Amino acid sequence: MIRVALLGFGTVGSAVARRLTHSPARNIQLTHVFDRRARQKRASLGAAASRLIFTDCIDDIVSSDVDVVVEAVGGVEPAASWIRSTLLAGKSVVTANKQVVAQHGAALWRLASRQGRQFRFEAAVGGAMPIVRAIGDGLAGDRITRIVGILNGTTNAVLSQMEATGCSLDAALDAARARGLAEADPSADLSGDDARAKLAILCALAFGVRVKPEDVGGGSSAGVTCRDIANACRRGGTIRQLAHAEYDARQTALTAWVAPVFVERDSIFARTTGAQNAALITGEHCGEIGIFGAGAGGDATSVAVISDITAIARDRAAIIPAPELVSDFRLLTADCRFADSRTIELQEAM
Amino acid sequence: MIRVALLGFGTVGSAVARRLTHSPARNIQLTHVFDRRARQKRASLGAAASRLIFTDCIDDIVSSDVDVVVEAVGGVEPAASWIRSTLLAGKSVVTANKQVVAQHGAALWRLASRQGRQFRFEAAVGGAMPIVRAIGDGLAGDRITRIVGILNGTTNAVLSQMEATGCSLDAALDAARARGLAEADPSADLSGDDARAKLAILCALAFGVRVKPEDVGGGSSAGVTCRDIANACRRGGTIRQLAHAEYDARQTALTAWVAPVFVERDSIFARTTGAQNAALITGEHCGEIGIFGAGAGGDATSVAVISDITAIARDRAAIIPAPELVSDFRLLTADCRFADSRTIELQEAM
Repeated sequence: MIRVALLGFGTVGSAVARRLTHSPARNIQLTHVFDRRARQKRASLGAAASRLIFTDCIDDIVSSDVDVVVEAVGGVEPAASWIRSTLLAGKSVVTANKQVVAQHGAALWRLASRQGRQFRFEAAVGGAMPIVRAIGDGLAGDRITRIVGILNGTTNAVLSQMEATGCSLDAALDAARARGLAEADPSADLSGDDARAKLAILCALAFGVRVKPEDVGGGSSAGVTCRDIANACRRGGTIRQLAHAEYDARQTALTAWVAPVFVERDSIFARTTGAQNAALITGEHCGEIGIFGAGAGGDATSVAVISDITAIARDRAAIIPAPELVSDFRLLTADCRFADSRTIELQEAM
Repeated sequence: MIRVALLGFGTVGSAVARRLTHSPARNIQLTHVFDRRARQKRASLGAAASRLIFTDCIDDIVSSDVDVVVEAVGGVEPAASWIRSTLLAGKSVVTANKQVVAQHGAALWRLASRQGRQFRFEAAVGGAMPIVRAIGDGLAGDRITRIVGILNGTTNAVLSQMEATGCSLDAALDAARARGLAEADPSADLSGDDARAKLAILCALAFGVRVKPEDVGGGSSAGVTCRDIANACRRGGTIRQLAHAEYDARQTALTAWVAPVFVERDSIFARTTGAQNAALITGEHCGEIGIFGAGAGGDATSVAVISDITAIARDRAAIIPAPELVSDFRLLTADCRFADSRTIELQEAM
């Protein structure tokens, strides 16, 4: 039996709690929930809450006897510090927090490895789509050269809604909010910063390079108009926010950008609508591997979190060696709004 | 440093050997190759062969000091016995052999687990497409209800060639052979037996049920004519060999078939051409997750094999608990050649 504590009771945290309490796996038991508003949130779990310890004091979690802490707080701090304390206290950590993994993932992974514990983050990229395992594990036997994907479900829902209805970005945003696909403040989604953090995580896994999300160029999707999309349709395609990373190991040059670009109508990206995510991963030997699925939403993301807990439950003693990341490469990027993704002109970053 | 022996030097074995000798990973070393025609095959590796022990005696491998044995012999026996001896000798095993995994996978996995060693088989299904990890690990946090896929690259190459050119099945087979996509005897590919073995493996991973490949119904693709495909095109789609499995846990009823069926033109399956594989995995919480990629060929399959070796190299002490499979369910299947995959009438098997 593996004992689990949950940090944060928002969309992802509450979905994980619901599943672990209502149809629990035989060998996984949720015992603690930390939330700043623990008292109010307790009620939402109904009768199941009576078997849980709710607390607004992080030390109650760090000093508890749980085996795994699920971090679903979001934001870099205090989440990163809490993960560090948790690993130092000898527990494994599962996180859904792309910002923490993009900024501090390598250091936390090293710490986990030194502690003989695990640091897992399938939920940080792609929701239920198991792209972290595909790249970090399933394709570890190849040299990956390129990753192109739709990594932000909110922006994709907005752009594909504009394409389908001809509405404005604001109207599409309202529709996305009404369906729970956009938060009150979607600026990190539209600007591409959310996808930049995810792309940085995938660059570490695929290429072994350490890239700061903020150094990844591209352009924001916030200013896309229905006219831009109509123009793209006339050219035989549409506009999607793509995240693109390509690594030339011989030249030690990383190309990375996130931007709204033109994609052809029959590409997998044009066919990806709503909050779906999709990615094409190219390797020297495997050719092109594609993966797609629900990229957002508490229920889909809870699958990734619980899969990570299950992996730890299967072998608690397993040690996953931390990757060594290099920072010594040229970063190429582009200001490529509305460009055809195949013909983008690159420039040196910084 | 992890030491590796290779059983079998056919398409997959020689591709693995080439990669491990020509651009070796720092911590993986190929040391032994077993093949019945070891002397002739040795020459094909060039200078790299001088650092390897080639043998036609299986005991040389079983009694060697290697850590991992890669089984790429194919066929149920003697491969299954050799894997058993290897595990008993305290080595981990990576196999690309779908027949062995479909027939004896559960027992070999249990043996590996008891021995504190690993039994991995990513290469047995889907070539480089990491579907074994996606189902067994990445989506382990969900209850998977359905898997539908194109799991045989040869048949898909033949059917999509017939669709593209209007040629006969025999002509398409010749074209596939010329491109190295079909073997001299493609009967197991066309009949669906190859896909049935792969589907049985996925059913064990996804649903925890033990189904014999030969009990999976459906129909053969060997008799598909260009007229059948032309008819399907007129109906707005085409013909693909699909493998379909659906498990109703409450009714303990497994539906499973492999057959050439009608698929709609804009489905992922109609768009899957050549030797590509593709699968849609449905879970109660994750919705539909898709994965596609090169399903055959030595180079693509070598990625899956080397990814499995890499996983073992990362943590040799890791123990993957064997799944418990149940046989106590109703098996529903169908004789569904050319049926629309959405409207197939099922019958009880046996």
